[in-house]
Amino acid sequence: MTFKHLAGWSAALAAVALTTTAVAVGEGGGEASPIYGVTIPDGYRKWELIAPAQEAAPLDELRAVLGNDLAIKAYQDKTLPFPDGTVLVKLAWKHIQSPEFEPASIPGAATTVQVMVKDSKKYTTTGGWGFGRFVNGKPADEAQHQTCFACHQARVQNHDFVFTRYAP
Amino acid sequence: MTFKHLAGWSAALAAVALTTTAVAVGEGGGEASPIYGVTIPDGYRKWELIAPAQEAAPLDELRAVLGNDLAIKAYQDKTLPFPDGTVLVKLAWKHIQSPEFEPASIPGAATTVQVMVKDSKKYTTTGGWGFGRFVNGKPADEAQHQTCFACHQARVQNHDFVFTRYAP
Repeated sequence: MTFKHLAGWSAALAAVALTTTAVAVGEGGGEASPIYGVTIPDGYRKWELIAPAQEAAPLDELRAVLGNDLAIKAYQDKTLPFPDGTVLVKLAWKHIQSPEFEPASIPGAATTVQVMVKDSKKYTTTGGWGFGRFVNGKPADEAQHQTCFACHQARVQNHDFVFTRYAP
Repeated sequence: MTFKHLAGWSAALAAVALTTTAVAVGEGGGEASPIYGVTIPDGYRKWELIAPAQEAAPLDELRAVLGNDLAIKAYQDKTLPFPDGTVLVKLAWKHIQSPEFEPASIPGAATTVQVMVKDSKKYTTTGGWGFGRFVNGKPADEAQHQTCFACHQARVQNHDFVFTRYAP
């Protein structure tokens, strides 16, 4: 995907936003996150898988990080920092035992959708990243969003503030 | 994706198979599974996510099931049985603690790739499904492949012999 394509996609999204009043949960669009103004990207559920993960108690979640075309290309080419336009989306579900196969845990109810958007000109004080954390399609509050970058900065500054690696 | 597209895709794959001698691990093609003759589909790593899962000890794995376009459409439309041409691929990795975020477990080394292919005319005695289990791109032995259908039949006959549901 080129920047030209991205620009076209953004324009299409904007047009949809202007003509659509109801946005289904998980379908993109909707309210923007505080501080960063990040929204859930349209069509993200069809994006390529970067990696699954599991989060221990008390959250007990299964997770999967998906990326847009720029993200996937950056991972494949080992490009760091990630280029402007990179978008990563982490989906999370409660972690429940499969009723059909005892050793397996599978996704239960969806919990959060978390988004990182790279824009080095817009997000100059947070490593070029904007953050959005959404519950049932609604952004979490400002206090929660104030914690995003500090943790990413403290732990994964050497990977352009991104935890997830591409699963081999 | 239509059957015409699928047919073209298969023809292209066959052409690649005839002209390629070395097949990279995970890149598709390669040896077929015993009993079923199933191969790792080309380009599967770019397919859409159906759901992640976690498997307890002794395997201790993180998993993700991806599907081709027919599979995704069948899940979305709740079509059962899955149509001929449906392909599901389960990727599995060892489950290791993140060195950067203690509560998280992330993918370690890849372990197996497992494939299910729906062809109701070819696989008449196994619910219309062909199975392939691959380790480092090589199919597991015949004894292992003899166990696939019995377990799927015993546990998920009511979901066309498929364990995985679409993660919400």
